[in-house]
This record gives sequence, structure tokens and C-alpha cells, in this order.
Amino acid sequence: MAADDEKFYEDFEVGDSFVTAARTITETDIVMHAMHSGDWQPHHTDEEFAKTQPFKRRIAHGNCTFVISTGLIFRSQGRPNPNIMAYGYNKIRYPAPVFAGDTIKVEVKIIDKQVHPKHPDHGLLTQSETTTNQRGETVAYVEHVLYAKRRSSSS
Amino acid sequence: MAADDEKFYEDFEVGDSFVTAARTITETDIVMHAMHSGDWQPHHTDEEFAKTQPFKRRIAHGNCTFVISTGLIFRSQGRPNPNIMAYGYNKIRYPAPVFAGDTIKVEVKIIDKQVHPKHPDHGLLTQSETTTNQRGETVAYVEHVLYAKRRSSSS
Amino acid sequence: MAADDEKFYEDFEVGDSFVTAARTITETDIVMHAMHSGDWQPHHTDEEFAKTQPFKRRIAHGNCTFVISTGLIFRSQGRPNPNIMAYGYNKIRYPAPVFAGDTIKVEVKIIDKQVHPKHPDHGLLTQSETTTNQRGETVAYVEHVLYAKRRSSSS
Amino acid sequence: MAADDEKFYEDFEVGDSFVTAARTITETDIVMHAMHSGDWQPHHTDEEFAKTQPFKRRIAHGNCTFVISTGLIFRSQGRPNPNIMAYGYNKIRYPAPVFAGDTIKVEVKIIDKQVHPKHPDHGLLTQSETTTNQRGETVAYVEHVLYAKRRSSSS
Amino acid sequence: MAADDEKFYEDFEVGDSFVTAARTITETDIVMHAMHSGDWQPHHTDEEFAKTQPFKRRIAHGNCTFVISTGLIFRSQGRPNPNIMAYGYNKIRYPAPVFAGDTIKVEVKIIDKQVHPKHPDHGLLTQSETTTNQRGETVAYVEHVLYAKRRSSSS
Amino acid sequence: MAADDEKFYEDFEVGDSFVTAARTITETDIVMHAMHSGDWQPHHTDEEFAKTQPFKRRIAHGNCTFVISTGLIFRSQGRPNPNIMAYGYNKIRYPAPVFAGDTIKVEVKIIDKQVHPKHPDHGLLTQSETTTNQRGETVAYVEHVLYAKRRSSSS
Repeated sequence: MAADDEKFYEDFEVGDSFVTAARTITETDIVMHAMHSGDWQPHHTDEEFAKTQPFKRRIAHGNCTFVISTGLIFRSQGRPNPNIMAYGYNKIRYPAPVFAGDTIKVEVKIIDKQVHPKHPDHGLLTQSETTTNQRGETVAYVEHVLYAKRRSSSS
Repeated sequence: MAADDEKFYEDFEVGDSFVTAARTITETDIVMHAMHSGDWQPHHTDEEFAKTQPFKRRIAHGNCTFVISTGLIFRSQGRPNPNIMAYGYNKIRYPAPVFAGDTIKVEVKIIDKQVHPKHPDHGLLTQSETTTNQRGETVAYVEHVLYAKRRSSSS
Repeated sequence: MAADDEKFYEDFEVGDSFVTAARTITETDIVMHAMHSGDWQPHHTDEEFAKTQPFKRRIAHGNCTFVISTGLIFRSQGRPNPNIMAYGYNKIRYPAPVFAGDTIKVEVKIIDKQVHPKHPDHGLLTQSETTTNQRGETVAYVEHVLYAKRRSSSS
Repeated sequence: MAADDEKFYEDFEVGDSFVTAARTITETDIVMHAMHSGDWQPHHTDEEFAKTQPFKRRIAHGNCTFVISTGLIFRSQGRPNPNIMAYGYNKIRYPAPVFAGDTIKVEVKIIDKQVHPKHPDHGLLTQSETTTNQRGETVAYVEHVLYAKRRSSSS
Repeated sequence: MAADDEKFYEDFEVGDSFVTAARTITETDIVMHAMHSGDWQPHHTDEEFAKTQPFKRRIAHGNCTFVISTGLIFRSQGRPNPNIMAYGYNKIRYPAPVFAGDTIKVEVKIIDKQVHPKHPDHGLLTQSETTTNQRGETVAYVEHVLYAKRRSSSS
Repeated sequence: MAADDEKFYEDFEVGDSFVTAARTITETDIVMHAMHSGDWQPHHTDEEFAKTQPFKRRIAHGNCTFVISTGLIFRSQGRPNPNIMAYGYNKIRYPAPVFAGDTIKVEVKIIDKQVHPKHPDHGLLTQSETTTNQRGETVAYVEHVLYAKRRSSSS
């Protein structure tokens, strides 16, 4: 079987999946996300405002959960595969909040594959990246599209 | 006219747009994004690897550009509008690289509006968020969906 | 009326004021301020020492409160006004402590204006910047002097 | 002679001075100051804007220089002196810019001492804190007031 | 063969080795190491002092190289192995400097194994961790001791 | 007696010791150490995993304690002594865990001195650096070797 970093389009099947390691989201992560992005929405950074909102306390930025999820996926994948390039995201949703102290992990699953209509030596793989917390609730759902070289094209 | 933080669905029109302030992306931002996310892809963090790639040097993570763009938009919007909630993203693409030293800004434009099919007291606004560098090249293109209360629903 | 970023000396009156958004000061902010400044005074960074002091626990550096206050003011002001330059501070006091978890905001008020004795095409505006916590206690009081172009001078 | 951390009001004389160690201000310090404070004024964070200004490139926030100067002073003073408390600042000026790569140090000098009019068991010491760069130019000038216990009061 | 995270003492042989991914050490890493540790030795943080020293410019703290090397090793090892615990380090040397911009990687090699004299159900594995820069020079040499469960002991 | 920053090999005696200031290790320090090093071992960063381990909650990386200890020692030593260079470490052990909220300090003691066999104008000083928490438990034990110029060699 092909090593992870030598896989081609053909080596991925719809339904293939893996689960990443987990990471606890801390108040530090929330503050650092605000600092790094410059997004100080009061839902994430103003405790008095947050008390007046449905969740009653500060929550992580959805994008904080998202970028930390990409880091968890990176950890699981080891060395980069030169046959695969990021193409973009087609959907991002944050269906439930993440609080400081929650621990998240990501299930990655191939949900679609298509030969590229204009570049037939490549295909588009769509993988769902579903981030859940320690209670099994989905806190982020992402559809990530990868541009993968077809094996035949490499000969 | 309604103040920014009291706008309802009806106060947004397709074509409405504004441009944010600009921010220079530094090596510090790239390193901090890798640290914060845990995504150490060598394209962003290994200069020797990067020299062998098309851009010949380290580039910012696409998601680094994305989250900094959200911070620039936050800066332009002032106080939060209780009538508007983030719904998600429907598309994210990174058509060109960002290098340390590049300066980016974001044009935000309403590109679609629809009454929500199941919740007719709300509508979905789609705004494009187009991040460009100092040479006018698009480095990120995002379609951001907002869930907006309809004015009539507030009576 | 002049837009905020086109105001001249004449457009400011003693008594003009506004209040910024709020931000919760976290343990992360205190630790990061110590790291960034290099000021590890035990009142801020040594819990065992702090227990022996009047406040019984670590407090934020006064200057941490001060610089975060300047960021809150920045957020309220939008684009920079080319007619106004920072001249300096004439007074800074920290009358009460800030603890991790406190939420602060700033009231900015023009308290004095004077034509500059040597540069009559400019004036000096003094604004007080009063930072309060969620209980309404003043935790920082700052007198900030701005050097403002006079309108007549621009013709 | 009294050890540094046991000094009283009487142990300080007008003219006493010392010079701190030096620290190079880096682009990282400027970016981190913007992140920590939330002050993204374009003079410090937007290279394209900065090119249109007199200094032609980004400069450190004055307050970045100020807080790093307090850290350099902390390093020189060793253990805290329980007889001395910070009272406030009476003057802060930033007469020249600091660029990434500049190296600063601080000269601290007692410039005034007065028995406190209402609390005669304490006195007010005013020390100037003059930060200079590697070319000897003054980049920050601060008057810092300390509240010092009088020795007689301790008997 | 045993998966990496199920290996026992017996599964490691003297001479086993692997090489990690690489990471470019930036000025940001050096500044952040000084901030995090509180170690502001002028060799790392004062450019004017550094110019007077043999290397003529700031160098990374040896311990900055060391802790980043441990992160590179972590990346290569995936999920933690419950049979292995860190025991300590027996030797750390920094034979050559690391400058901002250098790219380092680590070769990890088992150099010794011994059944533990007092706990015969465990053994001590010593691995060398040799960090090299992009010119192949050794910049850190570490002997790391691991406490590994013996397979027989698990029955 | 020689000032600290002019001491030679001869000025150090076995048994000389001092104790540093103390610093509280926070969750921020643990998260920042993981970010900076890239070492996300779940013992330090995954609360759910940590609950299944003997200490029942996240603990600081041993190396986090180690590098912060070096910063505490730096603070006690003031200006660098040109006669002393770091030679390396001969032993590092972490006999007990550090939790967020613990306050550590370091006792530094000269435990060995030897004229260097090949460079008789220098000697090797070995100092133990014993880090303890607020309950007096040793959390890190380090043997640090210094390369010190002999006084006679300077004439």
C-alpha cells in the first residue's frame, strides 16, 4: 500500500476516514486568537456582554476552532504529500459553541471524488472535517477540497 | 438612516460594499499562526523546503490571511449588531500567495440576499470578502453568510 | 459635520466624550504583558508573594491596563486623522487594581484646549481617558495630549 | 549602606542614577504590542501607509518603547523594595521614533524629592526615565513618581 | 511489527534512527523564547552587544534550539506510547550557534539500552538527538533517557 | 570582593549558592510552551487524556519548567560575566509535576569545580539548579556546567 506521503488521487476512496488527536481549548487560545486576528467581538472577549447572551459566558471564535482543527489534522498527516494541494473550502459551519476547557478532536472523511473537468490529470477530493467536543457534540463542520494528482498522470 | 449596529435584513442591498483598513503580514504573523494552530506545513515554516517550491520562499498559511481578514472587517464594523449572526462560510479560496511584508486589505460586498425558507422572520445575506495585496492581486476570496433579522419581525 | 477622520482643532469642544467597547482582562493578558515588557514584578507574577499583599492575589500591571485602554480607544476611532498627532501624556494614575476576569472600558473626554503658544497653526487638546471596571471603579486615569491642526491653517 | 531592597526615602538623593541593560526592539515586538494592546494604528502596522509618512517605514508604538523600558528598569532593580510603591507618571513624551532593529536602554535619575504634604511618614520621589537608542537619541522621556516610606516612620 | 505507539523496550535496538521534519528558526522564535523564559541574555536580545562578540549578531538561545527540537521529534512520533516515559537528559551541548533564518532538523538514534537494575520489568533507552542546520553543522547534541516497559512484564 | 560580573573561576567555591525570585506557572505558560516548541504531548494539552493519567489533570512540560528556571536564574545574575560561558548540561530530571497555579523558584549551588584538563587557563564549574514549588517539592533538578576563565590567565 502506498505510504501516506506518496498517495495519488486513486488511493483515496469515499468513506476513508481517520480521527485526530485531541486538544483542550483554553482561555489562552481564545485571547491569542483575538490578538492574532484582531477580531475582538464581545462574544469572545467581553465577559459582561457574554453574560447577557444565550451561552452566558465567553465562547471561542468559530475560526479559532477551525484553525486549531487544521493543526490537529496536520499532526495526523506527517510529511507533506507533493501530490496533494489545498484547493479551498466549500462549507464551514459552527453548530455549537466551544468554551474554554473543552477538548476537541476532528474526524476527517473523504465524502466525494471527481476527476477535474478541465485538468483530467488531477482530481478533486472533498473531505469533511468534523470537530467534536468531549461530549460528542459537533462544534465545527468543514468541507475541504483537495486537488490531487492522478497516478496515471505521473508516468 | 439606520446606524450600523441597528441594521436589519432590509437595510442591506446587493452591491453594498466597503473596504477595510490595511495590515502588513509579517514573519511574526506566519510563525504565530503556525504556533497557534499547530499547522507547521513546510510551505510556511521550512525555508529550505520552500526554496524548492514554485514561490521560492515561505508563504503565509491561507488561513492566516483569512483570520487576519476577519479582524480587519471587525475593525470596520464597530459595535456588534444584535440583529446579525454569523451563519457560516460557503466558499474560501486562496488564489495567490501572501509573503511576509505584503500588506492586505479586504473589500466586503453584499452579493446575495434571500428570505430564509424556514424562518421567514430572518434572511440570509451573503457577502463576499475579497482580500487583496498591495499590488491589487486577490489573495483570498471568501463567501460569508449572515443570518439577519427582518425588521417586520421586530414589531 | 466633519467626519471623524477629517476633524480639526476647532471641531473638538471641552466636554466632548465617548465610551469605548469593553474587554475582559485575563490571566493571559497579565502573563503576556510580563513577557512582552520583561517586567516580572511579583505583584503580577508570583501568587505566593501576592497572597501576602493587601489584594491577596496577583493583579494586572498598571501599564497592562493602560496599553489595553489605548487599544480600546483605537477601536472606537476608526481611520486615523491626519490632522491629529499624539503629543504625550501629562498624568497617569492607577487608583484601583485590575484582577484577571475584570472587564474594563474607557471614557474619553476633552478636558482642555489651547492654541499652541509657539505654533499658532496648531492647538493642544487634552483628553482624559478614564478606565473603569465592571463595578464602575476607576482603575486608570490618564491625561493624553494631542497636537491638532487648526482649520484656518489648512487654507 | 542600605541594600537596594531595603532603601527608604532618605536613601535616595536627587542626582542618583543608573543605566539599564539594552534590548533590541524587533518587528516581533511591534506586532506583539499591536496584538496585546489592540492598537493597530497604521503608523505601526501598515507598511504601505508608513511609506507615505515622514519616517517612510513602520515605527514602534511609543507605548511599546515605554513598557519595554519599564522591563529594562525592572531587570536592574532586583527584588522589590517593600518601602516603595508606584504612584504614577507625570509626563511621557516620545521625541524620536524607534524602528525595528534599534537597540534601547534607559537612564534612570532621581530629579525631585518631597515629603508628602498629607502623609508626612512618606515622601514622593520623581525619577526621570530617559530611553535612548544606539545612536544616543532620546526616544522616550518619562517622569515616574514613587511613593517612598520615610525611615523615621518605620520605628 | 509493533505499531509505534505499542512498542516495548524489546522493540528498540541500538542503532535505530529516524530524522524529523525541519523548521526555520526565526527572529520571532528567539524573541518569543526570551519572553517565555525570561532569559534576556544580551547574546540573544541586544544587537549592539552581539556585534562585539565572535558571531557578530544575535544568536538563538541554546535552549530555544533544544525545545524546538523536542517539538520536531514530537511531530515524528504521532500518538503517545503508554509504555514509554521520559526519564531525563544526561547530556546537552550546543556546539555551534543558530541564527535567525537557519533551518534545523533532528536525527534521533538509540545509542544504549539497559534493563533497569532496580526495576527489571523496565529498561532504560538512551537516544541521541542531534540537531543540525541547513549546512549540516551540529547545533545541539542531546542524550535523552527513556524509561520503557519490557514486554514480558505486560503479561 | 569581585563584582558578580567580573568573577573568575577562582571566585567560585563549592557550596556557594543563591535562591532566585519566584514565578507562578500559569495555563498560559503551558499553552505557550506547546505553541513555541510544537510539543503537544497530551499530558500537557489534552485535559480528557490527562484525567486518565496518574496526576488527573494537565501538567507543565518538564522543559517548560526548565526554561522558566533559566529565566529566573538570569534575573538573579544581572549583567553577563564575560569570563563565564555556558558549557552544557550533564543531567536534567523532573521528579515531580508542575500544575498551572504552582509557584516555582530555583536554588543554584556550585557542586564541583575542576581545572579543564586540556585548557588549563579555564576551569569547569558545575552548578546544581534545583527548582522547587510552593510546597518545597523538587520539580526539576539540573546540573549545569560553566566554562570559566582562570584569573591567572588574564594577566
